[in-house]
Amino acid sequence: MPSRAQPAVNRQVLLKSRPEAIPQAEHFEILETPVPEPGPGEVLVRNHYLSVDPAQRGWVSAVVNYSRTVGLGEVMRAFAVGEVIASRSPDFAVGDHVMGLFGWQEYAAVEPCSITRKVRETDLPLSASLGVLGLTGVTAYFALRELGEPKAGDTVVVSTAAGAVGSAAGQIAKVMGCHTVGITGGPAKAALCRQRFGYDAAIDYKVGDLDAAIAKAAPRGVDVYFDNTAGPISDTVMRHLAVHARIVICGTISQPTWDPWPTGPRVERHLLVKRARMQGFVLFDYQHRYEEAVAALAGWLRAGKLHYEEEVLEGIEQAPGAIARLYRGENKGKLLIRLGA
Amino acid sequence: MPSRAQPAVNRQVLLKSRPEAIPQAEHFEILETPVPEPGPGEVLVRNHYLSVDPAQRGWVSAVVNYSRTVGLGEVMRAFAVGEVIASRSPDFAVGDHVMGLFGWQEYAAVEPCSITRKVRETDLPLSASLGVLGLTGVTAYFALRELGEPKAGDTVVVSTAAGAVGSAAGQIAKVMGCHTVGITGGPAKAALCRQRFGYDAAIDYKVGDLDAAIAKAAPRGVDVYFDNTAGPISDTVMRHLAVHARIVICGTISQPTWDPWPTGPRVERHLLVKRARMQGFVLFDYQHRYEEAVAALAGWLRAGKLHYEEEVLEGIEQAPGAIARLYRGENKGKLLIRLGA
Repeated sequence: MPSRAQPAVNRQVLLKSRPEAIPQAEHFEILETPVPEPGPGEVLVRNHYLSVDPAQRGWVSAVVNYSRTVGLGEVMRAFAVGEVIASRSPDFAVGDHVMGLFGWQEYAAVEPCSITRKVRETDLPLSASLGVLGLTGVTAYFALRELGEPKAGDTVVVSTAAGAVGSAAGQIAKVMGCHTVGITGGPAKAALCRQRFGYDAAIDYKVGDLDAAIAKAAPRGVDVYFDNTAGPISDTVMRHLAVHARIVICGTISQPTWDPWPTGPRVERHLLVKRARMQGFVLFDYQHRYEEAVAALAGWLRAGKLHYEEEVLEGIEQAPGAIARLYRGENKGKLLIRLGA
Repeated sequence: MPSRAQPAVNRQVLLKSRPEAIPQAEHFEILETPVPEPGPGEVLVRNHYLSVDPAQRGWVSAVVNYSRTVGLGEVMRAFAVGEVIASRSPDFAVGDHVMGLFGWQEYAAVEPCSITRKVRETDLPLSASLGVLGLTGVTAYFALRELGEPKAGDTVVVSTAAGAVGSAAGQIAKVMGCHTVGITGGPAKAALCRQRFGYDAAIDYKVGDLDAAIAKAAPRGVDVYFDNTAGPISDTVMRHLAVHARIVICGTISQPTWDPWPTGPRVERHLLVKRARMQGFVLFDYQHRYEEAVAALAGWLRAGKLHYEEEVLEGIEQAPGAIARLYRGENKGKLLIRLGA
């Protein structure tokens, strides 16, 4: 239980109304409630960083999804990292750093099953556990390696190449000996791709002929396309697949709504002619192998082979508008909300 | 070399003009040429049956494909089965039955590399080597098993369920212990699906609510979707995928043209939410394992576990219009052209 030195108030971000498209600030409200008491077996966590993820759009959508839809009046589902400040579980001690589905709130009384992991990489920044050593890095790790199956010498094209997941995917592909091509929006992000994330080529899709740029950057065709967009960028990349290409569907950020369902050029003929494979990825399926990925990512991070960017917003009042900010593509790297120490 | 008893004339079907969509009779012409002499190492084959396949549309299309486009004035590329009537190859003897890319013509002088296989199943009809023991059966065998990966108890949905490939896929899935659902057009084909091909359920997509019919026939969702259509039927099936579904793209028969490129509902969100996989199949990739499939298929055929339908057109003059007939969905089962004995 929180000591008397802890503030008695827990600020929570609740879902107020159901968005039809991208969640905006007005779909949420901030409520002040008492800091909860942990129940039997539970752990009380003080959150240090809240995560902002594209997947949160799906979690509040009325359209059927891979997890239960967040109800109106419920705390917004979110990953967070924080410190155990009271524990009624034998597996967690006060002072442990933990990461899990703690929601957009300052304090969370949670059952151990909501805790994804204890953070043991004490030499590395805690916030990395929500990014390159967390969901985004682990997503990139498994989605690229298990679905993309890149081999040394393969050409790997990444959309949202400067983003949290994309930049990790591009760098992991580079570590694996691939020729990496990043597609991103704007000259600043393109420069970031080349200079910080080590892409062999970076394409700014906002200028010039994307088709010609891909043909130039991937002259032997695209062996692996790691996609987070599901839109016109993908439609162009599909015309450049190599035989037996693998397309990893990791996100659909370019689609503002799934009601009505968006249309686009049909993929079947591309897949048939190139005997290519297109496959969807959700991290939950790899939860049991999480530590394998963190160990590899932490190793590359310490060895200077993996770099990341963060954009940190200060204070929980930034949370309601943060998903929309993500979908506008304004952030560079992993978007986080830091809560007062 | 043909003996004097052989007719001296070889009728050949040549590509006369390039179709913009489905090849029609007017895109071909029939030419009479002398029966060729086999060159050094070559074999002279008298064709007994010519194959009519959906893939032939792609072979004459100007749109880039997995094999070289048939040139104007060339013999139409086609599989055929026939008898060796002269041989200058040590590997083939007069009287051997052979199947291969012999083209739409009565006689073909071919190199051994054009011969797919010797037909050794002398207890089974020769025409089956172009159907259930040939391209269509072998396609169904590898596409279903290698890409679809059906497990006992899985729900397998097949489009063009009464067709040559579809009916084989549905029956192989049944042999593997799956719950099989066939989608086909018209009551006669639906009855054929149930009565002859053993589907657990058959849906006539031309009547009623396809969405509701799939929901009823596949209440636990679709684990494997074996598709030959790439159109509205697929768009409906995609809304019923089970988690980790596999979609096999084996053909695109519902699309009359790829120029302009057709559009449809985007697949990415379905693939992502259901962590599903969509993959294109071309038989050439499995050429080296052809005999494995024929052995399995012949075994099921002899055991009465595999049935097939053929529609046999008489005479080479039927060839030019046969692809269009196939795309109109008029045939029941494998479409063949029988040449005079």
